[in-house]
Amino acid sequence: MYLLAVNCGSSSIKGKLFALPSSPSAPLVQRAGLGVSGIGSKGDKVNFKVIWEQGKGNDVNEDGQDGASVDYEELFPQLLEKLSSSGEIEKDDIQYVSHRIVHGATHKSGIKITKDHTEGLQEMDKLSTFAPLHNHHAVLAVRACLNALPNHTSLLLFDTLFHQTIPPETYTYALPPPDQEIVMPLRKYGFHGLSYASIVDSLAKHLKKKPEDINIVVAHLGSGASSCCIKGGKSIDTSMGLTPLEGLIGGTRSGTVDPTAIFHHTKDPSADAGIEGMEVSQAEAVLNKKSGLQALAGTTNFGTILKRISDPSSCSKEEHESATLAYGVFLDRLMGYVSQYMFKLLASLPKENIDGIVFSGGIGEKGAALRKDVLERFAWLGAKVDEDRNERAKGVVREITKDASGIRGWVVETDEEGWCARMTREEFGF
Amino acid sequence: MYLLAVNCGSSSIKGKLFALPSSPSAPLVQRAGLGVSGIGSKGDKVNFKVIWEQGKGNDVNEDGQDGASVDYEELFPQLLEKLSSSGEIEKDDIQYVSHRIVHGATHKSGIKITKDHTEGLQEMDKLSTFAPLHNHHAVLAVRACLNALPNHTSLLLFDTLFHQTIPPETYTYALPPPDQEIVMPLRKYGFHGLSYASIVDSLAKHLKKKPEDINIVVAHLGSGASSCCIKGGKSIDTSMGLTPLEGLIGGTRSGTVDPTAIFHHTKDPSADAGIEGMEVSQAEAVLNKKSGLQALAGTTNFGTILKRISDPSSCSKEEHESATLAYGVFLDRLMGYVSQYMFKLLASLPKENIDGIVFSGGIGEKGAALRKDVLERFAWLGAKVDEDRNERAKGVVREITKDASGIRGWVVETDEEGWCARMTREEFGF
Repeated sequence: MYLLAVNCGSSSIKGKLFALPSSPSAPLVQRAGLGVSGIGSKGDKVNFKVIWEQGKGNDVNEDGQDGASVDYEELFPQLLEKLSSSGEIEKDDIQYVSHRIVHGATHKSGIKITKDHTEGLQEMDKLSTFAPLHNHHAVLAVRACLNALPNHTSLLLFDTLFHQTIPPETYTYALPPPDQEIVMPLRKYGFHGLSYASIVDSLAKHLKKKPEDINIVVAHLGSGASSCCIKGGKSIDTSMGLTPLEGLIGGTRSGTVDPTAIFHHTKDPSADAGIEGMEVSQAEAVLNKKSGLQALAGTTNFGTILKRISDPSSCSKEEHESATLAYGVFLDRLMGYVSQYMFKLLASLPKENIDGIVFSGGIGEKGAALRKDVLERFAWLGAKVDEDRNERAKGVVREITKDASGIRGWVVETDEEGWCARMTREEFGF
Repeated sequence: MYLLAVNCGSSSIKGKLFALPSSPSAPLVQRAGLGVSGIGSKGDKVNFKVIWEQGKGNDVNEDGQDGASVDYEELFPQLLEKLSSSGEIEKDDIQYVSHRIVHGATHKSGIKITKDHTEGLQEMDKLSTFAPLHNHHAVLAVRACLNALPNHTSLLLFDTLFHQTIPPETYTYALPPPDQEIVMPLRKYGFHGLSYASIVDSLAKHLKKKPEDINIVVAHLGSGASSCCIKGGKSIDTSMGLTPLEGLIGGTRSGTVDPTAIFHHTKDPSADAGIEGMEVSQAEAVLNKKSGLQALAGTTNFGTILKRISDPSSCSKEEHESATLAYGVFLDRLMGYVSQYMFKLLASLPKENIDGIVFSGGIGEKGAALRKDVLERFAWLGAKVDEDRNERAKGVVREITKDASGIRGWVVETDEEGWCARMTREEFGF
């Protein structure tokens, strides 16, 4: 029997298939990685991939329909079909599916859903209506899963779960009661929690510490970017807020701006943005989908931005200048959070108990120049970047500062699907 | 001949009258303080005050019309009338009037306006249309002044001027080009600048340093609250943004919240809020006028909040609890800025060149408990609060940490009108 961990974004599906362990002490063993990419990309075909661990099946790498004309309801069953037909499993062998869902409001644990127990679906739909840009695709995948795998149990795991330890003085917004009915309190929730939890776990193993002894500031920098202050293994503050919009600049997200800026920016910010299948305002669409690095530099690709800065001959003068500004703005906002979170730790813990600054996500893993720029601003606290380690270290957990550094720097590869699988195992006790 | 410095808020007018000095080296001497309070307060009468320096006139303390039924166009001439009739001056003796105006967009110097040169009025109206909640009353006062004092010259001095030194990577928002015409770039401007400039000047004098050698983090905490990072006497970062809304929590301001929160909060956030004489959206009205300490604790009075925390018997259980939360949220946001700004200074300057943390504004001057709570979080950097100084020190500049403190703490009384007078003197070279 198997466990499938699914992670649905707006342009891709990622998944990992694990064999259920034979005993409670045996490890979860990954059997296959799978995914669909290019969803929504006009003119390009979507691409299905299934990569099997040695001898367990025949790898799949197939193009499907045009990316712009597909929907999740179709794609998900197709992916399951390719998974089962290419390997040694039957669809019915999948006993559990865990779904990463971005917004879980105040839920303090995952939600179980089976064909017969669908109360959770109502809650899920409520969360999707509140945060359609963030939950919509995952919710479609859950429904597709219930249809395609009638005998399995789904577990919804939220990015917000890890931040339930943030104290009220930090998560509370100074807003009056709303003048309309709302499905959840308007407060800071925080996101990327499955990633942060996985990072704490990996670093604790590496340092041979208990997770509850880990004190770090993490910068999870991908097309969505956030930072988290982790004390005693628990989130005590994070940069994202009611939605993933607040905080750092993302590939297409503005991050924090004056809350009234959008009323000067967009003619009718409350109007429906016309995104198919979702009730999303112009304001949400502009601030989440058309801002960020895209607005500053004309590209969301951080590698391209770094290249345009270091090699002005590779681009036009305007591109070099806009890339330089975009990098500067990204770093300025990042330092604002990383520095205040490090301060939060230093104000309440001896410096030697602080395990350092962790970079993760695509930009965090690849951006050696960015990591150096951040850590050099901690030189006054004794941080010493090791150029060689920073450029070349390998592994899931890699130290990038010198042994004598006063503040340690790390790159930790996150594993959201692996973490979801582990939470599912804990939930069902297998 | 005289110079009148005017500071118009939404519920009060404050002013200071100075005699023009007899020579460029002579000091500006204050002759009278004047003001109107209670504007807009229903059921209460507005109160006019003129307090003369010894022997220069007869003090005025008179109630006028009901606060809710007055307007600036009437009040301002009445105040000038009381000033001239109670002292040894004619209205025509007022040669210069400086007006504090909140939002000056990208203007790098004050704007001069006379009865004959009114080009500045158009610019002023543009700024008022963009930021009606912040500029409207001051602009009415400028017009009333032009009518009442036909021969004077007005100088508009903006709170944004001091922040023109903030670098582009800090003031830039990651937003795409707006879809409507705008009168100013949508970026961080920063406010309270006249206050910050006056504080730098006072502290420099106290420390016998040049202003350009001052490196401090300032928390200007009044019913509007902001923080500023000052390096080499210049603003390099501040918490307020495009408008005074962004950043810290104010008496009725939310400060920074997820920019999409208001779309979940208020049914039609773009709709006109119906504030007389101003085009202001519901969103701006709710976030600026109904949020902040008022929303959290049911009062904007910080003293009341501190009392409800320290003496639970003085209030209901709910009031004690909401006051405790409000204080916690206020402190949390304040620490976020003060810590990241101190970090910014420490990352680029030797610690001994940093002059410390300055508190100003009503809450900053009176809130000894708050100052202690902030400075104690700097204990790891050697900050040592001096309880006696913190509770009892007097003077425009007062040190509140021990002589051996690793980070110095200060209370500095700000003097926006005095600073405006000084800028006016520099502008006209008298």
